[in-house]
Amino acid sequence: MASAIKTIEWADDRLVILDQTLLPNSEEYVALATVDEVIAAIQRLAVRGAPALGVAGAYGVVIALDQGARENWSETRLLDEINRIRVARPTAVNLAWGVGQVEGFMAQGRAEVLRAAQQLAQDDYLANREMARLGADWLLAKLGDRPLTLLTHCNTGSLATTGWGTALGVIRELHERGKIKEVFADETRPLLQGARLTAWELAHEGIPFRLLPDGAAAMAITTGLIDAALIGADRVVANGDAANKIGSLGVALACTAAQIPFLVVAPESTVDRSVATGSDIHIEMRKDDEVTQMAGVPTAPVGTRTYNPAFDVTPHKYISVLVTEKRVYDYQAGQLP
Amino acid sequence: MASAIKTIEWADDRLVILDQTLLPNSEEYVALATVDEVIAAIQRLAVRGAPALGVAGAYGVVIALDQGARENWSETRLLDEINRIRVARPTAVNLAWGVGQVEGFMAQGRAEVLRAAQQLAQDDYLANREMARLGADWLLAKLGDRPLTLLTHCNTGSLATTGWGTALGVIRELHERGKIKEVFADETRPLLQGARLTAWELAHEGIPFRLLPDGAAAMAITTGLIDAALIGADRVVANGDAANKIGSLGVALACTAAQIPFLVVAPESTVDRSVATGSDIHIEMRKDDEVTQMAGVPTAPVGTRTYNPAFDVTPHKYISVLVTEKRVYDYQAGQLP
Repeated sequence: MASAIKTIEWADDRLVILDQTLLPNSEEYVALATVDEVIAAIQRLAVRGAPALGVAGAYGVVIALDQGARENWSETRLLDEINRIRVARPTAVNLAWGVGQVEGFMAQGRAEVLRAAQQLAQDDYLANREMARLGADWLLAKLGDRPLTLLTHCNTGSLATTGWGTALGVIRELHERGKIKEVFADETRPLLQGARLTAWELAHEGIPFRLLPDGAAAMAITTGLIDAALIGADRVVANGDAANKIGSLGVALACTAAQIPFLVVAPESTVDRSVATGSDIHIEMRKDDEVTQMAGVPTAPVGTRTYNPAFDVTPHKYISVLVTEKRVYDYQAGQLP
Repeated sequence: MASAIKTIEWADDRLVILDQTLLPNSEEYVALATVDEVIAAIQRLAVRGAPALGVAGAYGVVIALDQGARENWSETRLLDEINRIRVARPTAVNLAWGVGQVEGFMAQGRAEVLRAAQQLAQDDYLANREMARLGADWLLAKLGDRPLTLLTHCNTGSLATTGWGTALGVIRELHERGKIKEVFADETRPLLQGARLTAWELAHEGIPFRLLPDGAAAMAITTGLIDAALIGADRVVANGDAANKIGSLGVALACTAAQIPFLVVAPESTVDRSVATGSDIHIEMRKDDEVTQMAGVPTAPVGTRTYNPAFDVTPHKYISVLVTEKRVYDYQAGQLP
């Protein structure tokens, strides 16, 4: 196996991140030592992905403590700076959550805050590994103990987490077991996380793969090229419906038509039992220019309006199983989360 | 209504085409007067779309006759030059068909060849208008006489034909009747015909529209935003299955899930009863760099392999009706072509 991708890591009293804005064309690491540097990295999406942002928020508190000590910040200034990290991307719940997980340890000193941040990162990693194990076991039991061809959408790998991945983590686990024949990676318009990030991760790991336009997934699936499809989730609600990157629903519909398994892989913290059904999930609508431009070049007439939701919701009836670090929920057997 | 788009037209003894490679950023017409100019325009895709290519081939014979008269070509030279037009894009059946439709009139002189080419263009236009009328009537009868929100994929408008369109022709007809609320146009990766061409046509006609990533179509359709979806076809076979631009199948699956009409609109000449089912249709696989680059900028790691079929096949069970210039085939009532 290729060396592990270190998306985010604490080293020499700095937060070292892989700059995802430069992928796939360049692989560069940045060491962050000030609150401003942490915020800039988060805002320009050098670090992204819900679990990774949570960890960045937690380590950000340590950086604020260190900078405050160097620069003799007042207690008020310190709390203000930590709050700036918390709200660096206001829609990213995990960022505020990560800050919140460690700030309670500040009274016990910097070492305890760092320990809590490292624990949070370790917990995310271990949860990923457990999901991967459970998902891989389920697929091999369901489809037979043989190399599989799997399709995935968006990026749910090391780059979105602390070093393993959710849906892509299952694929990595299967690859380690010698059970991946090939991965079909949707390019994932409009922001191309599949082309830019998933393809890069798969190439880095030496996992055989092909990239495809999102519109080609239905044909690949219904003509028998694919054994199963796997996605992550941004939120799973009480009835089992799952919100994920736009384009996920189309993959689920094709899997249903082809009668092959469609898996959602996400940590228990993604399950929000306070929301009844998928239609109650608020879907973020994004800007026109994500769709009307490519690499800065216009692809549509000036002034073109778009329909550009960030996520779609896959109804539970199109989902075979939800895999968390705790268990496999078999939706088709009525086991909702 | 805005002035009609003149994709291809005979004027002042020249073949005048709208250069589609410059759309949507620039609207420029090119007048072709030599065989070399006609072939270059076809090969660099300045003129594209099956019906439009047929007409270009037919007018190309007139251009060869005129150039031959100016330059005193031998009979052999003349036939060689006409053959060069015929095979300018070897996979485009319509190009050879268009040449073949008029060359039989050469013995009767240039005026008869020109008349035949003009007839061919006129016939395409009239067939389009008839399809549009039949499709619009069917939709309003089915969905109620009210302004509709329709989704389409790829480009099936004036730019692909001689000035009206197939699926987009139905939309234009409905717009003239005041029955279009809004059009959702899939951008149609990888070559973005929806973003570049359909959006341009809709803007030109003043038809309200929004552009969407192909992956967002399933969400738009299943959340109730869309009344019906319409596509064209490259080939319809004996059991009713239809091959069309990659991504069409996903639209059909979403329409089936949402229980809204999914229409295929194509001339009778597209129906190939010599092929039994869609699985017998040979699907052209295209180059990796259509998917791994955007506007010349790499979007995926160097060396990334792709799955890039030009077309997919929608099984007849997911198609509500096939609209041709002759009639509406109601698949759900067992009326296959």
